[in-house]
Amino acid sequence: MSEAVVTSTVNHQFRLASRPVGMVTRDDWEYTTEPVPTPGEGEFLVQNLYISLDPAMRGWMNEGRSYVPPVGIGEVMRALAAGRVIESEHSGFEGGDTVIGTFGVQEYAVSNGAMVMKVDPELAPLPVYLGTLGITGLTAYFGLLDVGALKEGETVVVSGAAGAVGMVAGQIAKIKGCKVVGIAGGPEKCEFIRTELGFDAAIDYKSDDIRAALKEHAPKGVDVYFDNVGGEILDTVLTRLARHARIVICGAISQYNNDGPMRGPSNYMSLLVNRARMEGFVVFDYADRYLEAIIEMAGWMNAGKLKTREDIVEGLDNFPETLLKLFRGENTGKLVLQVASE
Amino acid sequence: MSEAVVTSTVNHQFRLASRPVGMVTRDDWEYTTEPVPTPGEGEFLVQNLYISLDPAMRGWMNEGRSYVPPVGIGEVMRALAAGRVIESEHSGFEGGDTVIGTFGVQEYAVSNGAMVMKVDPELAPLPVYLGTLGITGLTAYFGLLDVGALKEGETVVVSGAAGAVGMVAGQIAKIKGCKVVGIAGGPEKCEFIRTELGFDAAIDYKSDDIRAALKEHAPKGVDVYFDNVGGEILDTVLTRLARHARIVICGAISQYNNDGPMRGPSNYMSLLVNRARMEGFVVFDYADRYLEAIIEMAGWMNAGKLKTREDIVEGLDNFPETLLKLFRGENTGKLVLQVASE
Repeated sequence: MSEAVVTSTVNHQFRLASRPVGMVTRDDWEYTTEPVPTPGEGEFLVQNLYISLDPAMRGWMNEGRSYVPPVGIGEVMRALAAGRVIESEHSGFEGGDTVIGTFGVQEYAVSNGAMVMKVDPELAPLPVYLGTLGITGLTAYFGLLDVGALKEGETVVVSGAAGAVGMVAGQIAKIKGCKVVGIAGGPEKCEFIRTELGFDAAIDYKSDDIRAALKEHAPKGVDVYFDNVGGEILDTVLTRLARHARIVICGAISQYNNDGPMRGPSNYMSLLVNRARMEGFVVFDYADRYLEAIIEMAGWMNAGKLKTREDIVEGLDNFPETLLKLFRGENTGKLVLQVASE
Repeated sequence: MSEAVVTSTVNHQFRLASRPVGMVTRDDWEYTTEPVPTPGEGEFLVQNLYISLDPAMRGWMNEGRSYVPPVGIGEVMRALAAGRVIESEHSGFEGGDTVIGTFGVQEYAVSNGAMVMKVDPELAPLPVYLGTLGITGLTAYFGLLDVGALKEGETVVVSGAAGAVGMVAGQIAKIKGCKVVGIAGGPEKCEFIRTELGFDAAIDYKSDDIRAALKEHAPKGVDVYFDNVGGEILDTVLTRLARHARIVICGAISQYNNDGPMRGPSNYMSLLVNRARMEGFVVFDYADRYLEAIIEMAGWMNAGKLKTREDIVEGLDNFPETLLKLFRGENTGKLVLQVASE
């Protein structure tokens, strides 16, 4: 690894300028320029290389109670990132270390090391640590296996199936001996999950009749539905549950940019008829099991059973527009913004 | 017990004339008169004394898949009833036996004894066997203890709290050492659940701000929500969940007479934030545990810990109008139609 050097004296940042109503717009962001900060005692300076773009970011922009506090107006937008330590006054980190942490949508950050993980870029490309071997993959892993209580031979449906979490969830379900049906938008994504990832079937929500396709591909009903999207797709899957089905509520990306209330699942009484449950989770609760999960997933990756895909866009300036790719369903795999070259 | 005799030669019945759209109307019923049927070999004739009126009946009137098949057009309306055996060609039943079964909304029924239970009217009044010591009470029992996985010291909220299931659910939660908040409509019902049943607090959904009242009475959040009503109340309770809360979906009476789609719970993403679940159940799945539950509940009744209330309306003719009391929230306790004197 090359010796790390400060390559700039200025730090560009995206700060939250206003709380969006409906879809996020460019005006909700303020682009700021500051001097690169200097780490104090017990701190280090990190240069961000890759910034993780996640649907959850939309929730952090809203006011009000959630599983983490909202980003304050005027604050640098919260984001997970992979970076390199440039300068350290922290005994646990030294220049050149590659680290993952909540470093924000900016070029440089100062950290005290809390919740920062050192990673080895020789073992996996850095964007993978933000995706399949990071919080994204862990979300799929614990959501499916723990909340979904997946059992071999069951029929699993995953929405947002070509997205960062969905692609991992579907592959884990295959590894566990399930029949896996993915729901994704457009022929390329459907081809990707079927051919490259080995899903048993793909439903294109943009062109297929989802209910009819579920009847065809899940004729005995859906045992586990891993939901990333909410809205109409959730409502449709509710009509096709098997008895004792589990719906894992991982996200509801179709609803995050509503300017009115979220659409609730009108067909939720299917939970009663089918003795089924719908359950939410937050991956952070599994922190004490991250290591075991990552080791298992890394093993699957090495064995070629778990494939990964990243959608990398370059340039910090492109952050506002790139984030919208998530809500427009334009990314395949983990969406990452590269803000400096390795 | 007096010797049973046939007191009439005609059998009056309510049959389903059409599938209601929205609220049930008188025109959805056909009132028919037939000769009292004669039991064949292996059958018996029962005279209905009390007919159970239940919110679930509204669902049975709809076409389409549910946990039981719909009532067919022209068929006698399905209903649980308590009656007396008048004439028997069945080795297991004899004249004078008091029985509970699905005898329908009519004066007389012939049964082959399937799913019929003999009960002792000396131990409890017959309407109680349709209510607190019947399917209604069992629904509360298994819903709360099994699906709700209730634990001592938790805060439990029950909607439809002065109704047949709700009043039992709340009292069981009290017996199990929980703090119990009931939601009911109007001052009489609130007074009933607080004073007579011993709930810790009552919220009048017709006049109180439910969200504010939940903040007051469940300041640490709701651990278990036993939902009989759905709609806006469910959505409001979702905003006040404690972490790892369980929502037991028992019914959604506020939505059964919608002429459009049901209202789904817009705030369901609170399940994610609070790592909570929403789960449905059907009491029939617990048939092999009915006896243990009834013995336990009868013990609580004898000990004065579990009180019961029946709302008894007389006259088979009054069936259509009386059923509407359920949907208008006009009954307190178990609604029963008395169709003959004991």
